[in-house]
Amino acid sequence: MNGARSLVETLVNSGVEVCFSNPGTSEMHFVAALDRVEGMRGVLALFEGVATGAADGYGRMAGKPACTLLHLGPGLANGLANLHNAKKAFTPVVNVVGEHATYHKALNAPLTSDIEGLSAPMSKWVCTSPDAKSVAGDAAEAVRQAMSGEQGVATLILPANTAWDESNGPVAALPIDGPIAPDGETVKAAAKALEKPGRKVMLMNGNALRAKGLEAAARIQAKTGVEIFVDTFYPRSERGQGIPVFPGLPYFPDDIAKTMEGAEELILVGSPRPVTFFAYPGKKSDCTPDGVEPVVLATPAHDGIAALEALADAVNAPAIDKLEKDPRTQLNLPDLPTGELTSGPMGQTIAALLPENAILSSEAATSGLAMNIFTATSRRHDWLNLSGGSIGQGLPVAVGAAVACPDRKTVCVSGDGGAMYTIQSLWTMARENLDITTVICANRSYAILNIELMNVGAENAGPKALSMLNIGNPDLSFIDIARGMGVEAMRSETAEDFNDHFKYCMENKGPKLIEVML
Amino acid sequence: MNGARSLVETLVNSGVEVCFSNPGTSEMHFVAALDRVEGMRGVLALFEGVATGAADGYGRMAGKPACTLLHLGPGLANGLANLHNAKKAFTPVVNVVGEHATYHKALNAPLTSDIEGLSAPMSKWVCTSPDAKSVAGDAAEAVRQAMSGEQGVATLILPANTAWDESNGPVAALPIDGPIAPDGETVKAAAKALEKPGRKVMLMNGNALRAKGLEAAARIQAKTGVEIFVDTFYPRSERGQGIPVFPGLPYFPDDIAKTMEGAEELILVGSPRPVTFFAYPGKKSDCTPDGVEPVVLATPAHDGIAALEALADAVNAPAIDKLEKDPRTQLNLPDLPTGELTSGPMGQTIAALLPENAILSSEAATSGLAMNIFTATSRRHDWLNLSGGSIGQGLPVAVGAAVACPDRKTVCVSGDGGAMYTIQSLWTMARENLDITTVICANRSYAILNIELMNVGAENAGPKALSMLNIGNPDLSFIDIARGMGVEAMRSETAEDFNDHFKYCMENKGPKLIEVML
Repeated sequence: MNGARSLVETLVNSGVEVCFSNPGTSEMHFVAALDRVEGMRGVLALFEGVATGAADGYGRMAGKPACTLLHLGPGLANGLANLHNAKKAFTPVVNVVGEHATYHKALNAPLTSDIEGLSAPMSKWVCTSPDAKSVAGDAAEAVRQAMSGEQGVATLILPANTAWDESNGPVAALPIDGPIAPDGETVKAAAKALEKPGRKVMLMNGNALRAKGLEAAARIQAKTGVEIFVDTFYPRSERGQGIPVFPGLPYFPDDIAKTMEGAEELILVGSPRPVTFFAYPGKKSDCTPDGVEPVVLATPAHDGIAALEALADAVNAPAIDKLEKDPRTQLNLPDLPTGELTSGPMGQTIAALLPENAILSSEAATSGLAMNIFTATSRRHDWLNLSGGSIGQGLPVAVGAAVACPDRKTVCVSGDGGAMYTIQSLWTMARENLDITTVICANRSYAILNIELMNVGAENAGPKALSMLNIGNPDLSFIDIARGMGVEAMRSETAEDFNDHFKYCMENKGPKLIEVML
Repeated sequence: MNGARSLVETLVNSGVEVCFSNPGTSEMHFVAALDRVEGMRGVLALFEGVATGAADGYGRMAGKPACTLLHLGPGLANGLANLHNAKKAFTPVVNVVGEHATYHKALNAPLTSDIEGLSAPMSKWVCTSPDAKSVAGDAAEAVRQAMSGEQGVATLILPANTAWDESNGPVAALPIDGPIAPDGETVKAAAKALEKPGRKVMLMNGNALRAKGLEAAARIQAKTGVEIFVDTFYPRSERGQGIPVFPGLPYFPDDIAKTMEGAEELILVGSPRPVTFFAYPGKKSDCTPDGVEPVVLATPAHDGIAALEALADAVNAPAIDKLEKDPRTQLNLPDLPTGELTSGPMGQTIAALLPENAILSSEAATSGLAMNIFTATSRRHDWLNLSGGSIGQGLPVAVGAAVACPDRKTVCVSGDGGAMYTIQSLWTMARENLDITTVICANRSYAILNIELMNVGAENAGPKALSMLNIGNPDLSFIDIARGMGVEAMRSETAEDFNDHFKYCMENKGPKLIEVML
């Protein structure tokens, strides 16, 4: 058995079932091995950022890694932006990158580059297999690394001769180090902080945002009066009917500072400190109130749910169904809107029609705010957010989520600017017949940048500057682009159009795109 | 004056006239500075790989750098694949990357990453400006680094506060270290090698492939009988009527080995050794014949034209117009083809109709061979090749070439697979109304990989493997995609169609796309 086959068999042994790939010559043996091993599904992308973003979306929903298959340094480079998002989301990904044969590398052929150097910034673990006999063991270790402790991207670099040379066959899965259990002393410290008078704030991210974590948080709030905020850029949250909901930490610096103002205690559950996304002249970047030292109840390596449940018990919070006021969200669907189509009515329609158990991949920077508010009381769903701030995540994450959860409807809501970074995702949606409805918020602008231009004090911008933020001229036609990649597409000009189109998409399976003219 | 303005003024002082950008919040002051400084044109791309590839194409044609403006680590990452190609092409590029404010970085906000680490593999020089007062000097040094000696990518990383803080104003351009003049001893050694009996081979790349270099090479050949080959992946060659033409070194390993067989002397002029593109099981990677130690007449840091002229003089070669047989290519245009449209007729039509002084950006892996042969006797043109092997170069390089040379027709011939990596290029072509005709060779396959699958010995591939090489299902419609980005598009099903469409495009200015159904 060659090294390539030992790789694929070991990955399957380790629970990896899907390979999001864009291979080249140096990966041909790995591609050939896909046919010889049962249990590995190959999903082709036309651009590597689609493959890595899909691996992120898959990992968020499946709770285990997919693998990628990328072609040398440039193929890896094209996938790095979405690996950055996966890293910041703590998503387990096994990132497989082909390399020149060990003896070929020194010759500096055109495609030679420093693959380890390129991988390191976005990976928690990087390994180059030295020979075919090492591949299986390295692959099992890659899965272990991706899944253990603080989860993330494990990059396995495979020189071409490790694929075609003889191996010792596959190995079994390695044991995973699960998330860290809550520490008794820290739980006590958090409970003590919550007993104090004055304003107390808790910031949450990670698995604390699943239903069980949110329920425990609601119990703690009911008992202690702590104010709870959800970190701005969470990878995944369960939301909607039956699930307690908490406001999000705002995005802009003055709003974050205001939210944190007067807090005397700060408890972090899988969340970083309240840091601004960007720096702004004359404004604080770390909005932790002066003199407050946060209690870190859970890091991203911890089990946030277990930590919150331990804290709820430590403060003697009643069970969720024994609370005076039930904190679980009641279903409250907005009416379908009529008339002009702006981001508000768009959000209303989505909230009204989103089916039970939908997955919502959101990358609508300025156009997604209303949708976020309206869907808080929708039918139960998962919301996947832009975790690392690198736009071009929304469509690929939807691809991966839909592959992981074929029986659930996936809705991807993206800005027009953001959608163009990885627009090739549409083709993979069509090829795999994924049940994804992509909603493009077509405002013909990097709208967030028009706001940021003012925020950073770069005022009085002239026409050349403003043209760098305006993506009209020419207008993009997403319905043409979608049809060009085999995806059924429609354009909504009015709220009534969008009601009809979104309803059609929710009632019919398969990949579809709606271009919403904002 | 803030640091951002000192940057733009210094770049303009240093001869940089174009900025290919995809900015974000951290770059807003640099964007605002574009309006306040005369002489810098901003060209927006919807994806960073378009911006970096365009900077490569611009540098190849203008002989001086454009700058980029990219957003933090992920924006840089999206541009790395085409920076790899620029590096391998020795194209001068000033790669400007925004970074978080110096005091913001330690807070590990979502978009934080190791930008220096990401830049290093594709850059010859990397510098992070520590403060606003350093920006102007660093910018002048970036241009000097990009242009001096072995040209390449100079990456300048600018924390946001270096943009908005007060600077000391711009600085003047720094002196450039031009290409290295030929070394007398090396020229003598090469001349001596050419006097020997037996088979002598010369491989050429770099500026040796401009008309003057090719003329000097032809004189040397006429006098000494040396066999001359052009390196497979050259960044730019002048070709066609009036210019001597030499065969290219083949791509596949057995063909390279055969080409080099029996050579007793090997002279390298700006070219690496005859190394295979990939390694293949049981085949040699370095096809330099055993026992032959090449004479390196010119490295990429040398002036290949001057080296060849010195060698021609050293071997007492007559002037080009005194040679017995004039080596300068006679115009020989093929007839327009009829009937079935395959890559042969496609190449014939392009060769027949390519206008004087056209620029041909080629990334048609399997479909471009016939075109290469037919155009050797076309009207005079520049051919820009895939230099670093990272596909997704063809369209962006055409963008940059057309910006550099607005009075010349640019033709981009790309495979369908390759075109999809940076398909967002079409939008920039439309926005800037660039005179580019994009020809998509739609064979619905990563056709080169079907060949490579056999070459690497991964035979008997099954349906799952073959599906990873087949990009039909669904078929891409490039005419829809082009229209979606504002580019006039047409589809050619027969040779007659293509004759009509290509003729129309050559006779009319502006961005157009022809999808050739192969």
